[in-house]
Amino acid sequence: MSARAGIVVTGTEVLTGRVVDRNGPWCSEQLRALGVDHESTVVVGDRPADILAALRWLESEGCSLIITSGGLGPTADDLTATVVGEFQQRAMAVDEPLHARITAILERLTARWPSVDQASIAAGNLKQATIPEGATILEPIGTAPGLVVPPPEGSTGPTVVVLPGPPSELVPMWQAAEQTQAFIEATAGRVPIEQSMLRLFGIPESEIAATLRSAQAAGIEVDELEITTCLRRGEIEIVTRFSPDQQELYDSFAEFVASSHADTLFSVDGTTIDQELAALLSGPPLRTIALAESCTGGLVAARLTELPGASTYLRGGFVVYSNEAKVSCLAVPAALLEEHGAVSEEVAVAMAEGARSALDADVGVGVTGIAGPGGGTEDKPVGLVWCAVSLASGELAVRKLQLPGSRQLIRDRTTTVVLHMTAGLLREGSQ
Amino acid sequence: MSARAGIVVTGTEVLTGRVVDRNGPWCSEQLRALGVDHESTVVVGDRPADILAALRWLESEGCSLIITSGGLGPTADDLTATVVGEFQQRAMAVDEPLHARITAILERLTARWPSVDQASIAAGNLKQATIPEGATILEPIGTAPGLVVPPPEGSTGPTVVVLPGPPSELVPMWQAAEQTQAFIEATAGRVPIEQSMLRLFGIPESEIAATLRSAQAAGIEVDELEITTCLRRGEIEIVTRFSPDQQELYDSFAEFVASSHADTLFSVDGTTIDQELAALLSGPPLRTIALAESCTGGLVAARLTELPGASTYLRGGFVVYSNEAKVSCLAVPAALLEEHGAVSEEVAVAMAEGARSALDADVGVGVTGIAGPGGGTEDKPVGLVWCAVSLASGELAVRKLQLPGSRQLIRDRTTTVVLHMTAGLLREGSQ
Repeated sequence: MSARAGIVVTGTEVLTGRVVDRNGPWCSEQLRALGVDHESTVVVGDRPADILAALRWLESEGCSLIITSGGLGPTADDLTATVVGEFQQRAMAVDEPLHARITAILERLTARWPSVDQASIAAGNLKQATIPEGATILEPIGTAPGLVVPPPEGSTGPTVVVLPGPPSELVPMWQAAEQTQAFIEATAGRVPIEQSMLRLFGIPESEIAATLRSAQAAGIEVDELEITTCLRRGEIEIVTRFSPDQQELYDSFAEFVASSHADTLFSVDGTTIDQELAALLSGPPLRTIALAESCTGGLVAARLTELPGASTYLRGGFVVYSNEAKVSCLAVPAALLEEHGAVSEEVAVAMAEGARSALDADVGVGVTGIAGPGGGTEDKPVGLVWCAVSLASGELAVRKLQLPGSRQLIRDRTTTVVLHMTAGLLREGSQ
Repeated sequence: MSARAGIVVTGTEVLTGRVVDRNGPWCSEQLRALGVDHESTVVVGDRPADILAALRWLESEGCSLIITSGGLGPTADDLTATVVGEFQQRAMAVDEPLHARITAILERLTARWPSVDQASIAAGNLKQATIPEGATILEPIGTAPGLVVPPPEGSTGPTVVVLPGPPSELVPMWQAAEQTQAFIEATAGRVPIEQSMLRLFGIPESEIAATLRSAQAAGIEVDELEITTCLRRGEIEIVTRFSPDQQELYDSFAEFVASSHADTLFSVDGTTIDQELAALLSGPPLRTIALAESCTGGLVAARLTELPGASTYLRGGFVVYSNEAKVSCLAVPAALLEEHGAVSEEVAVAMAEGARSALDADVGVGVTGIAGPGGGTEDKPVGLVWCAVSLASGELAVRKLQLPGSRQLIRDRTTTVVLHMTAGLLREGSQ
């Protein structure tokens, strides 16, 4: 029997979407890596009855481990520790050594805020040091301790791991939680599960359904694998989960996809296009890049600089919204702008070449388009984008896009296309 | 009795975080606006048993309405319609007129992909037209129809609204769902709930707990309101939900916060700092802006250009990672870089002034720092960031930050500070 876990994410700000939940997915991935089956994540607001109902449901579903995130702050609406204490039938009590440790942390932190209300700090501190009896403390990263709370004495119910909401606190605390006796016992039945991802760019999702059917027809038992496909930022991801003894079956399937979609499959090991492009630029040989962005307004630069080490190859970028900036920063000829308009093949190429020259880079990228909602015309509607990639060696790639959807979608999708175009051109050059 | 609803978000890609769920939060907000109480969102993978268990739990929790998102695609792993049919004890059948309408949509769509597998398209089409008997069809936006599936005949169980996963399809379909007879009946007990938000910048969250206590002590019955606070992108949000007859109480509370935190409260109506800055730049008088970014690598520009109409005031931006780019694009004196280093007050100011001059703007912004994980030294550790805002009128604001956390957090938090600094300087000038 495999170990089963559930996740409860608390916080009205998460339930209603003011904060995007990163903890549920992150913990899910940790559970998978451990071989613990994760069935569902329940998101509830800061209402004790709702948190308790979620815990009771996951228990009834047979979970031996429940992870909670959030609701450990100093304010009165943060009640997770108390609710978990009630769920595990454990009295709440102040842990004095923990209280002293949090006091020391707070003294350091509040030095920044000299006018802070001391009574409020003390009340929050005492609240955060009040924990269910018998719980194992996970040392605070901020001011909130995490907790591993075992079931009531003599019960076979789930162990609850209580973690804070900020991912910067939750992530390091997970490592400590994993090593507690209660966690190890609650996940005793775990069975390793493999997960592999294939990424494709430039085909519709329905084609994958056809490929799965063809693979089955060719004698590859894909029905035995847990395969899910999804469309994400314009790319198709095929994720397969399987037990280690199915490795050979998975390999056959992955090879079948690779041979059916050689032109659109770009990643067989989960590598993103961002990482592939970074590797192509880093070299050897090192190839420097310069960007000129209009409608994406810095998003391509922001995406390239997400990865540490981008300073090695990114010479710099220009956000050139106005025609004046295109002329003065990139030396786009004013006549070109006048003749073809700012959103045109000619201007995209001139921007790419201008960025490359201005910063003496090996690769230049130019993006110009109409992200909307305003600014479209009959000839040049919202969603029209021209992208150009120019290499110092003279090679050039140009694409015209007509993207559907919102301003945000058009801008985001364009960055994906630009990354693929650039990687494609550099890949060819490396062959 | 108020109407109660639950949400089931399906998709292994959402459960495991490859796709961020936007639908749960969005539907939650729609339910709130309608006055329907939303208790929890359950995220499950593409396993029928898990979807069914979530539906049964929400029914047992007293929900009269359940919203599902996802699992309506053409591939075999998309099973929500079938599971909801089983839950409502309704047989599945092909709806022939719907089948014909989806066929017409597909003919239009697949024109882009001439080499597409026709058998696979036809199978996906038939699957998407197979729906529970007695369901109301919500016309497809993509190729998947939505469904409003009433409880079994004679039962008082919940109505289930089945919506597709892509937000661009779910959002317009919601409007149609709301107007169906089954939806209206399932939400008959709804009671309007107001929601207001206050935003503060530059104080710790624990101060808000003190303010709530002081307000209560001053005779404002804040305990009667449903108040939640959260820290988001470096700002504190106080969100209050209350019934319309508590408006006066809420107003007293909001006034109390405003008088206690006049220096840090910047929004009383949900306006974001992004929107406020856009309004300050748009004028009148119009003030143009130019950006020079090092460690934020285009994120400030990307954030400014998120809002439509940014082209009115954004002259452009420079992503200047290398010293050479700082010199060539922004005329930062090489001697200054040599004397103080790239991450210094002097260089941040020179970048702000350089961007302003290069693009002839009214406002210049300079950001230089060490986002990490590498590149830090004892004198200049990771997280050190200098920000400068320079006005053509000669005014200047400078801030030194020492931010904790990851590369992503440092970059993101810096953009928030820069937006507040710029808005602050322009606000003063408008007074």
